[in-house]
Amino acid sequence: MKLKISFQGERGAYSEEAIIQRFGENVELFPRPFLREVFSLAEVGTVDYAVVPIENSLEGSVGSTYDLLFSSNLKIVGEIILRVRHCVMANKGVKLEDIKEVWSHPQALAQCRGYIERHGWEPVPMYDTAGSAKLLKEKGLKNVAAIASKRAAQFYDLDILAEEVEDVPLNFTRFLILSRSEAEPTGKDKTSIIFAVSHKPGALYRALEVFANKDINLTKIESRPTKLRPWEYYFFVDFEGHVKDKRVSEALTLLAERVLFIKVLGSYPRSQ
Amino acid sequence: MKLKISFQGERGAYSEEAIIQRFGENVELFPRPFLREVFSLAEVGTVDYAVVPIENSLEGSVGSTYDLLFSSNLKIVGEIILRVRHCVMANKGVKLEDIKEVWSHPQALAQCRGYIERHGWEPVPMYDTAGSAKLLKEKGLKNVAAIASKRAAQFYDLDILAEEVEDVPLNFTRFLILSRSEAEPTGKDKTSIIFAVSHKPGALYRALEVFANKDINLTKIESRPTKLRPWEYYFFVDFEGHVKDKRVSEALTLLAERVLFIKVLGSYPRSQ
Repeated sequence: MKLKISFQGERGAYSEEAIIQRFGENVELFPRPFLREVFSLAEVGTVDYAVVPIENSLEGSVGSTYDLLFSSNLKIVGEIILRVRHCVMANKGVKLEDIKEVWSHPQALAQCRGYIERHGWEPVPMYDTAGSAKLLKEKGLKNVAAIASKRAAQFYDLDILAEEVEDVPLNFTRFLILSRSEAEPTGKDKTSIIFAVSHKPGALYRALEVFANKDINLTKIESRPTKLRPWEYYFFVDFEGHVKDKRVSEALTLLAERVLFIKVLGSYPRSQ
Repeated sequence: MKLKISFQGERGAYSEEAIIQRFGENVELFPRPFLREVFSLAEVGTVDYAVVPIENSLEGSVGSTYDLLFSSNLKIVGEIILRVRHCVMANKGVKLEDIKEVWSHPQALAQCRGYIERHGWEPVPMYDTAGSAKLLKEKGLKNVAAIASKRAAQFYDLDILAEEVEDVPLNFTRFLILSRSEAEPTGKDKTSIIFAVSHKPGALYRALEVFANKDINLTKIESRPTKLRPWEYYFFVDFEGHVKDKRVSEALTLLAERVLFIKVLGSYPRSQ
């Protein structure tokens, strides 16, 4: 039986590259246009896992993923770190010198700005990287290129004209693997939680104190609007350890007394 | 002399609405496609102010604005809170029942999902709200609507078919006003800073301690990738008070001893 995995975007999206990197080619893919559906498919059991982007090393966190984690009962069971390599692709027979326009997501265009300017191409923002490749193919255009993943070029049968065209090579995206069941401790785990604090001076500070006192290393802290009242926030915190570790469970017990609410999103093996 | 103000996007963008709300109609507008240019125009003195989005009450922070604040020497001198009201607009003579497709930025489409589904329209993601209105006008389409600001409808001479079509009314965007000179204390100010801490347990906790000890209320904390090494972060913190307040300057002096670096982005009157 093939593993069934949902992800957001068109076939050939960077999420698909992340899935193949971790699970290999022998999987059944469920691409969906909206992230909400990617979660739903895992929640109802249509797929075994949802794989969703949580953070990019240049662009920062993916807010919509954080918001869906808040309301979902899925557990984080793993993470995948993908090195993002942007490729320039075009229809068969098109050469670099034929190209006048380049289509991609605005973030990808911005990450390849130096390369695009050196070629004198017009950057055209689109809503999706792989979607740009798909549209280019459908329209059979001869003076347009797309910037997307290698896998998108393979899937839409486009020629790759250049690889790794990003200005800064430090481009990694971290994805989460979500499931209905929890992951067991491995000894090299991290844990993700959400909590809210009251709107008083020092409230966040007193929440973080429980981790400092137990010498637990925070690897990430992120705030997201509550959507209940403007300019009120939930905090998403990642730290080293598993909820089944004594030190972690003691810290979380103390934390629960100091915050308005707390939710554990999961403990899972750290990726390096 | 009219005030000169730069903003990101096409004419009719929500940033333009924010500028008019604060400064009135008697301003000279400098719309630019990329946020980087919006900053540059203020840095070189072509404009008096740059007005940039920093945070939305539903979608969260605007990462690219935080990144540009990090490297810019502009000071924050004010903030504007705009209630975002999405309008449905179409070419003259088009009626609601003629519409098959609706164009807008994916976030605006998501915020109006209920309204769009009730009408059975196909949502088509575009890179910009006002840009969708502009394109609709240029192409003279009769079965397509755009979702954008009221000001976009006025500017592109489109008919407004419906107003306030967002599912959740709690939709506010906070903009920053940037200038080359600093703002004086008003007694109701806030201050924005950036700092980095070492990668050790408790480092962020010890940084926040200086505010807790002085009873200074943090209104926002945001992390952004350093772009130097993956999964290392700068912290952007907003708190109540002005750098010329004794309590604030004492806290910042203590903070400077506990962090790797600190930069004050500005003290400015709080908007309510």
